[in-house]
Amino acid sequence: MPPRRPVKRVCLAYSGGLDTSVILHWLIENHGCEVVAYTADVGQEEELSGLPEKARATGAVDCVVRDLREEFVRDFVYPAIRGAAVYEGSYLLGTALARPLIAKEQVQVALETGCDAVAHGATGKGNDQVRFELTFRALAPELEIIAPWRDPEWDLRSRPDCIAYAQKYGIPVSATLKKPYSMDRNLMHASYEGGVLEDPWRAPDADMFVMTRSPEEAPNAPLELVIGFEKGTPVSVDGETLTPARLLSRLNAVAGEHGVGRVDMVENRFVGLKSRGVYETPGGTVLHVAHRAMESITMDRDVMHERDRLSPRLAELIYNGFWFSPEMEVLRAAVDASQENVTGEVRVELYKGGVAVTGRRSPVSLYDEALATFDDAGAADTYNQADATGFIRLQGLRLSGRR
Amino acid sequence: MPPRRPVKRVCLAYSGGLDTSVILHWLIENHGCEVVAYTADVGQEEELSGLPEKARATGAVDCVVRDLREEFVRDFVYPAIRGAAVYEGSYLLGTALARPLIAKEQVQVALETGCDAVAHGATGKGNDQVRFELTFRALAPELEIIAPWRDPEWDLRSRPDCIAYAQKYGIPVSATLKKPYSMDRNLMHASYEGGVLEDPWRAPDADMFVMTRSPEEAPNAPLELVIGFEKGTPVSVDGETLTPARLLSRLNAVAGEHGVGRVDMVENRFVGLKSRGVYETPGGTVLHVAHRAMESITMDRDVMHERDRLSPRLAELIYNGFWFSPEMEVLRAAVDASQENVTGEVRVELYKGGVAVTGRRSPVSLYDEALATFDDAGAADTYNQADATGFIRLQGLRLSGRR
Amino acid sequence: MPPRRPVKRVCLAYSGGLDTSVILHWLIENHGCEVVAYTADVGQEEELSGLPEKARATGAVDCVVRDLREEFVRDFVYPAIRGAAVYEGSYLLGTALARPLIAKEQVQVALETGCDAVAHGATGKGNDQVRFELTFRALAPELEIIAPWRDPEWDLRSRPDCIAYAQKYGIPVSATLKKPYSMDRNLMHASYEGGVLEDPWRAPDADMFVMTRSPEEAPNAPLELVIGFEKGTPVSVDGETLTPARLLSRLNAVAGEHGVGRVDMVENRFVGLKSRGVYETPGGTVLHVAHRAMESITMDRDVMHERDRLSPRLAELIYNGFWFSPEMEVLRAAVDASQENVTGEVRVELYKGGVAVTGRRSPVSLYDEALATFDDAGAADTYNQADATGFIRLQGLRLSGRR
Amino acid sequence: MPPRRPVKRVCLAYSGGLDTSVILHWLIENHGCEVVAYTADVGQEEELSGLPEKARATGAVDCVVRDLREEFVRDFVYPAIRGAAVYEGSYLLGTALARPLIAKEQVQVALETGCDAVAHGATGKGNDQVRFELTFRALAPELEIIAPWRDPEWDLRSRPDCIAYAQKYGIPVSATLKKPYSMDRNLMHASYEGGVLEDPWRAPDADMFVMTRSPEEAPNAPLELVIGFEKGTPVSVDGETLTPARLLSRLNAVAGEHGVGRVDMVENRFVGLKSRGVYETPGGTVLHVAHRAMESITMDRDVMHERDRLSPRLAELIYNGFWFSPEMEVLRAAVDASQENVTGEVRVELYKGGVAVTGRRSPVSLYDEALATFDDAGAADTYNQADATGFIRLQGLRLSGRR
Repeated sequence: MPPRRPVKRVCLAYSGGLDTSVILHWLIENHGCEVVAYTADVGQEEELSGLPEKARATGAVDCVVRDLREEFVRDFVYPAIRGAAVYEGSYLLGTALARPLIAKEQVQVALETGCDAVAHGATGKGNDQVRFELTFRALAPELEIIAPWRDPEWDLRSRPDCIAYAQKYGIPVSATLKKPYSMDRNLMHASYEGGVLEDPWRAPDADMFVMTRSPEEAPNAPLELVIGFEKGTPVSVDGETLTPARLLSRLNAVAGEHGVGRVDMVENRFVGLKSRGVYETPGGTVLHVAHRAMESITMDRDVMHERDRLSPRLAELIYNGFWFSPEMEVLRAAVDASQENVTGEVRVELYKGGVAVTGRRSPVSLYDEALATFDDAGAADTYNQADATGFIRLQGLRLSGRR
Repeated sequence: MPPRRPVKRVCLAYSGGLDTSVILHWLIENHGCEVVAYTADVGQEEELSGLPEKARATGAVDCVVRDLREEFVRDFVYPAIRGAAVYEGSYLLGTALARPLIAKEQVQVALETGCDAVAHGATGKGNDQVRFELTFRALAPELEIIAPWRDPEWDLRSRPDCIAYAQKYGIPVSATLKKPYSMDRNLMHASYEGGVLEDPWRAPDADMFVMTRSPEEAPNAPLELVIGFEKGTPVSVDGETLTPARLLSRLNAVAGEHGVGRVDMVENRFVGLKSRGVYETPGGTVLHVAHRAMESITMDRDVMHERDRLSPRLAELIYNGFWFSPEMEVLRAAVDASQENVTGEVRVELYKGGVAVTGRRSPVSLYDEALATFDDAGAADTYNQADATGFIRLQGLRLSGRR
Repeated sequence: MPPRRPVKRVCLAYSGGLDTSVILHWLIENHGCEVVAYTADVGQEEELSGLPEKARATGAVDCVVRDLREEFVRDFVYPAIRGAAVYEGSYLLGTALARPLIAKEQVQVALETGCDAVAHGATGKGNDQVRFELTFRALAPELEIIAPWRDPEWDLRSRPDCIAYAQKYGIPVSATLKKPYSMDRNLMHASYEGGVLEDPWRAPDADMFVMTRSPEEAPNAPLELVIGFEKGTPVSVDGETLTPARLLSRLNAVAGEHGVGRVDMVENRFVGLKSRGVYETPGGTVLHVAHRAMESITMDRDVMHERDRLSPRLAELIYNGFWFSPEMEVLRAAVDASQENVTGEVRVELYKGGVAVTGRRSPVSLYDEALATFDDAGAADTYNQADATGFIRLQGLRLSGRR
Repeated sequence: MPPRRPVKRVCLAYSGGLDTSVILHWLIENHGCEVVAYTADVGQEEELSGLPEKARATGAVDCVVRDLREEFVRDFVYPAIRGAAVYEGSYLLGTALARPLIAKEQVQVALETGCDAVAHGATGKGNDQVRFELTFRALAPELEIIAPWRDPEWDLRSRPDCIAYAQKYGIPVSATLKKPYSMDRNLMHASYEGGVLEDPWRAPDADMFVMTRSPEEAPNAPLELVIGFEKGTPVSVDGETLTPARLLSRLNAVAGEHGVGRVDMVENRFVGLKSRGVYETPGGTVLHVAHRAMESITMDRDVMHERDRLSPRLAELIYNGFWFSPEMEVLRAAVDASQENVTGEVRVELYKGGVAVTGRRSPVSLYDEALATFDDAGAADTYNQADATGFIRLQGLRLSGRR
């Protein structure tokens, strides 16, 4: 996609790695523009300290680093958990949740630094290009968008091409060994795709994972945790109130240790392809399980069933990149309304990759022990068993003799 | 619910246990009718050989035992798996799937043995009364329905009452110790509720479970299995074609050994209560996981998302007892249409309570490795990365500048 | 339903007609209680001035009349219009919207006048009993509910029985001729069911209708109206700002004159029966049509499609009596979020029973004439036709060669 | 979209009008290929007799005319009616239903005549390009697709450009006056958009319509019709069995005479634009109304509500061009299952633009007059009013005291 008009200054989503380093230089060369490098810290656990120097050495006029970790968990991860957003039954949306935040802040940086364009290093077959660009369009349609990998002028077709380009122009890149797959990481998860993973019959190699031990290598003793929620939002672990990023980090550490949260799946990308993805989402998995259990005693049945009909759609919107869309606001209003009463504590046990719910309690519980009991003494005042007769008879009226 | 008119001969769903033995006798006493005892073998693993003698000793004019195991798995469990039917995110519906079959066969037996009524021993607060009675109403509305626990004439209010009644009338019941919870079991699962489980903060006792080892006591070495599917239906394990009941039994054995399929939840009953249920569904859990993975490479994206919108509704219908309803036929037509291409094999690994998918393959796979690859050489003919530009631009058109 | 415990003072929903007059007296006789008569003015256009005297003459200790017309339209009718709530494709829910309001206020009156029970005159086969009683249960579960028509003690089985009872006890009832159908009326609509209408092949008699002329008798010249909306709420007619009740009254007058809003349908009651209902909803029909047209230029496509998936469910909840339910709050949050931008004006033409939209405009219109035009000069900057190629190609990727 | 490789013979969807005549010639000139002209008769009521000669005179090597009218109504219109498919509440999908059929047959003709490409004259902003091309991709992905209006080589930007091109090359085109809007017509409807209609506040001119009189000019006497259905499919009018195309033609004539079926709306195109469309669908409107009424007495409540949740999605798929998609097959399986019992007759009255249902009857009616009646004698055996007490109490259990 060539820009529709010449650009003067481009804000580039920059990681300091080979690809975005080459893109930084290529933008200057090919578009005759200035480049502002921009890096978001969403918990990817990479060294960010030397990044501005590296960006400038590569040609950037400026390099802006933003710590978005608390915002990421508070405003993106937690809403997804409240909405029980899981894509195609398994993917907890770690990357999909980070992209709109990264892109939103990129727009902010672009406007603050006088840029007239934004650029990213996502390829033309993936979901991330969509997530970046829909956010750009929604928040600042006046900015030109440059996606070098889809640019007809871009002629670097492989990693060796990029390395050669870097050497030719003296771009400082670490000579890291190429991994046999591509990877993304943030506070929510690490994801892997491509390369050796493209064969869906072949299991991933054991040494690929970075956030979790394998279940086999996890401790032999289970670990018990108590997660506290307020209106559907996680607020504490074992009684200790924690900020969003700290809470998720804490859970990542213990759940990762216990081998929790690995998923290996084939998913459907928005652009129409099937793709194999492997994920590790240790803390997020614990939160999803615990949140559902919290709802089980605090959420009305029909509210839950209504919300459950919205969840797959919510996940689809997040996956496809429509975080900043008007329909997302409608879904979020519904989800928020559903969480009014979701307050209390859930006890889970982590063991060898599993998360088992072992208890839930709440000051606003809708579970009524006296009512639930089969013991006859229970709640006869509230629940008269004879009522069931009329209930069943009218439920069955329209079925009667259909066969 | 007193019958609306006197009944002459009642077909009773009979297990030989305390409750239905007492009910058998009570029906004769209170309704002045004959009783045909009926027992379905759905894999509850109880001794059925002496049952007819016992029933007759208690007063039954006849006792009919039917082996429904293959039909249960083939026509009830497998459709639920094809439809990805999971109630409230966790319950795999083991009891809910068996009830309509048991009741359907009970109607058949009633008609064959000249009964004018049917009776069951389910209580007035649970789901099972609904499942029994909606099936009766749908299939044979001319039969009277007797539900002793809701009958105003029924004055046995506790287990000791029932034991006293049995002793008084010389009803042969085993002097088993009452378990501190109630239990149901069939080929799909074992379920537990009531009694000590009514406190949702208290974890179940370790010795309660009958189909699964605890994850802690499961083998230290993982087990790999390959499940084969045809049009969404499980057909083989490790290459061996098996009948439905045999296949599920096989999986129950190995998955139970590996601690797979325990669920502890609070659920919403159809009659309006919240209730705590604990389940073990070893083989069914493996099948649900493997089936979803089978779909991942053989099912079109939009078919999957459409089906995923129907699944919660399908689960709700099953849970609530509407198996034999016209709306169920509509949902099943949609689900069946969605499974046309779901054929192939999935490899899973069982370990310490977990089921991990490690591979999937299919002769009719929709996953296209050449297309999926980020490697530039791949499928340029089919997928032109430049197409993504127009795709994203039109997707974003309506979002543009909304903020 | 006999009350579970003796009641001392009952608040009865009272109209002054034969049925509720008899019930008033019957309550005193049979329950040995006091009765507070309560009447809500929801625009039924009946004489309310002598009602308190009549109630007291029948035995009531008090009679409370409440004018709920503005609240009815503002808080019940308008939310239904914003949510496009139409039951089974045709019924605009006039009665279903009024019942929860009437019952809510009845609870209020009951509590203010020291009642320990509430009673209504709805029969045991209809929807209204459910709407009354679910509201009572939701808002004041401590109040006993008395539904005489379902009471085993109630032995008046027909209108002559009631007239005889009234005569016996000197209850003042007008000797009106019984209509050959039953009717309900409020500011939103008039409805008819029962009696001669029970034959679904027979058209209603021409003289039945009270709010609308027949299309044949409507004026021969069309009438043009402009309806103004703010955030989805109707606010003005032909430029004149009107309170909710006045606005709807105004529209009822003109739309009734033009024969707008008659519906003749067979619907499915919540209790499991099919029932034939005839409705006239003149002003409400105009508002539904105009509101949809207002949305057409102000509502984002995907917001609309999301809302359209919720509308049938919203209508079902209203119809079934779940206005005061937690799931309704979730749906209303979603609907309200969808209406943020629904502001502007719609021009409609009324003629011989029809409502035709002839124009719509908005200061916040999302319709972009320059963009929409097929004229090539239009908006080339925003919409590049070449983008459609990539859009279509990726949309079609998963379909390719499926047959 | 330039073809990815040179093409030798193109099958062009050809109407004989200015645009497709120019395109025919332009394809030969610009692609150096042969052109097979193809015209489908879907009831557009244009003169087709001289078309082959005209096509050959313009340069075509062949011209194939196919009469698809019966197939159109039987396999496209009727399924939409069975599915109650209405886009955004108003549009009955006349054009959207015809495009996939036209394109399917075009693929057939292309393959039969040895073409390696297909072409159409739809522009780059509309829905029709998508409907054509998704069908091409689904049915014959090996065929190149040429869409001249989006082709960078295409430089005719206006009608005068096209006329000049035609004159330059001696292309035989009728010198018809350009209409101030664009129009499409088939057996289902006539549609209008663009030009003077682009102002959404301006009503269409009275002389635009071709299938319907205006309500004002319609007869002063109403007309009664009886439509017969079998399994949801229209089969007769006033007792006379008719083929699909004849039945729809018959209804078009009478309903058009009575001014039925005009719709004026702003709709959301798949490509992301809002667009104003005016439609006249006389017979189709009658069928939709009558079909819904037929369902009202023959379709189970929960089947209807389930289907009603699918209808908006069905309409969206049809509108967007996904007729030949696997998800459409899933929806159609569900819809077909819902129609099993939809058999009987509906009486409607046409008057001044309106269609009023005045009666419905069926040999398989689910409406039970004895059950529905409020008259106490009715069906006490089947419906015991006391049952409503238990029904309501359990429905209200979870609501109790929520406020």
